[in-house]
Amino acid sequence: MSLFRPAVEKMKGYVPGFQPKGLGFIKLNTNENPYPPSEKVLNALKEAVNARVRLYPDPVADELRMELAKAFRFPKDWIMVGNGSDEILNLAMRAGVEKNDKVLITEPTYILYEVLAQMQEAKIIRLELDEDFNLPKQVDTRGIKMTFISNPNAPTGALFGREQLRKICRASKGIVLIDEAYADFAKENCLDFVREFKNVIVTRTLSKSYSLAGLRIGFAIARPQVIETLMKLKDSYNVNRLSQVAGIAAIRDRGVMKRTVQQIIRDREFLIQHLERLDFSVIPSQTNFIFVKHARYDAFKLLKELERKKILVRFFNRPRLKEYLRISIGRNQEMIKLVRELERILK
Amino acid sequence: MSLFRPAVEKMKGYVPGFQPKGLGFIKLNTNENPYPPSEKVLNALKEAVNARVRLYPDPVADELRMELAKAFRFPKDWIMVGNGSDEILNLAMRAGVEKNDKVLITEPTYILYEVLAQMQEAKIIRLELDEDFNLPKQVDTRGIKMTFISNPNAPTGALFGREQLRKICRASKGIVLIDEAYADFAKENCLDFVREFKNVIVTRTLSKSYSLAGLRIGFAIARPQVIETLMKLKDSYNVNRLSQVAGIAAIRDRGVMKRTVQQIIRDREFLIQHLERLDFSVIPSQTNFIFVKHARYDAFKLLKELERKKILVRFFNRPRLKEYLRISIGRNQEMIKLVRELERILK
Repeated sequence: MSLFRPAVEKMKGYVPGFQPKGLGFIKLNTNENPYPPSEKVLNALKEAVNARVRLYPDPVADELRMELAKAFRFPKDWIMVGNGSDEILNLAMRAGVEKNDKVLITEPTYILYEVLAQMQEAKIIRLELDEDFNLPKQVDTRGIKMTFISNPNAPTGALFGREQLRKICRASKGIVLIDEAYADFAKENCLDFVREFKNVIVTRTLSKSYSLAGLRIGFAIARPQVIETLMKLKDSYNVNRLSQVAGIAAIRDRGVMKRTVQQIIRDREFLIQHLERLDFSVIPSQTNFIFVKHARYDAFKLLKELERKKILVRFFNRPRLKEYLRISIGRNQEMIKLVRELERILK
Repeated sequence: MSLFRPAVEKMKGYVPGFQPKGLGFIKLNTNENPYPPSEKVLNALKEAVNARVRLYPDPVADELRMELAKAFRFPKDWIMVGNGSDEILNLAMRAGVEKNDKVLITEPTYILYEVLAQMQEAKIIRLELDEDFNLPKQVDTRGIKMTFISNPNAPTGALFGREQLRKICRASKGIVLIDEAYADFAKENCLDFVREFKNVIVTRTLSKSYSLAGLRIGFAIARPQVIETLMKLKDSYNVNRLSQVAGIAAIRDRGVMKRTVQQIIRDREFLIQHLERLDFSVIPSQTNFIFVKHARYDAFKLLKELERKKILVRFFNRPRLKEYLRISIGRNQEMIKLVRELERILK
């Protein structure tokens, strides 16, 4: 008898992007925000570092949920908070899917969905995106227990059309989870679908737009019955005390987030211009990263060349994706440095 | 078609102890440490509250694992860190157990094991403890896929004999997880079983003895093959940046933990003396709480009387357990106040 489930023995875990220990890297590989969070967040955290860390956090993060409720105009019981939105994706998969259930995901998309589906021994149904990484016109949702869509999509950065997504939500008998990790960088989102459909979950994160990747704060918005079910499955104290404090301060002071997002969008457009000049083709991005392919130069070779210059970008060794590099948008100076290095490598 | 799995629809979540928002409570209901963590922990946290919270944490918490490796004298790859030990229990159950597998747990024990087993649709086999809440002489482990034992046990506080546990580990073909959340308050533990048996996982937490319940830091020690499998299933960035910093400082300065543990043990014995004088019977405790039953007074009524005096203790509405109250050990002054109130109620 093996100690573990056969499905688990077979699995490969999700491998996150490299986190260098040393300094001096230009880190464009894990879609972090190059700017610090609001000063008010840091001040609130400093104040919360006191003897009360000995106490368990609020198990349901009520104060943070109240803040999110006000900001997004949903009642509090339509919202739950997770240890990053990854935890919520994990809970949703476990709540909705059992062995041999069909899970619909796009190809390509965030690789974690596949890992989570394997853990449940689900049947993964792949919806191949067209050559521009857009959704196909027709999507067959018959017999699908759960659908996971990242919108804007990762690692392509492309935003799917609201009408196409609406059609999928309407046709689906099971849950449709729309992972909006990058929505703050996009021109539109699907949060209102939660009011329209009782089978939709929208997830968000404070990791990217709010500059809080280190503190693991994600949230879901869905109908109260859905939220209640997800909360039943979560660990009792899933979001720690300091993260709750940071989340509250970040949502209250979200003007700061909006300003850094504007700056990142400007630098995204700046970088795209230069890369197109250097013969890259760039998937239209509505995120804080771009997905690019050079007309002649091999992506993996380029990754390695940049690494030598201490510039980290992301490469996915997977059909179709391996022609591309994913580049997070950093500070303007970092973008200038990147362009300069690329000019040298490509000349 | 229901949106969720039938097993999930049926489940009740684990309900953690009440966390009052107001002040002025004597909080003896969730086994928190009444003393603050080491000053060095708070200083390290304050220093770590800076712009780097924008970056993802180390996904595998290597520096903290190295610190734990030194402290507990195991190689680093025998150790993993979780978002509280609850996360590790959750991962272990998902790694080891699938539908209809048999999971052995004692009755009573930490209720979370049951919730986690239900989520996997496992068959729960209950090992009824004897009238003093000790293990029965004979334990049948045939056909058991996974065993969860809390030692010292919760909510009774009783420590099981090492030889009995060793017999269970030896006889078991599946994983035996020994949850040592309270081991720092006990006279002995089973950490060495991990060297002796390849099917043993020992879990620990920094929530209680290290006064860090708010920061969610737990860890597991087991053979590298076991650790590797658990790590495959965890969320990529399961332990946030500040918790990793706090954990490192707490383990380095664990002399402070040992002193508060000694004080808590003294106050535990002080409280037991007084409660026995007041006609309570007390299960011998090797933890930071006691499990007590009064000779005449109903436990639930007593809970309510104490609540009125703003003293919170824990009641479990479950056969056998509902005759008892679980009381966390607080500061000496709080124990005196508790005894005084009990004298008034019982006179």
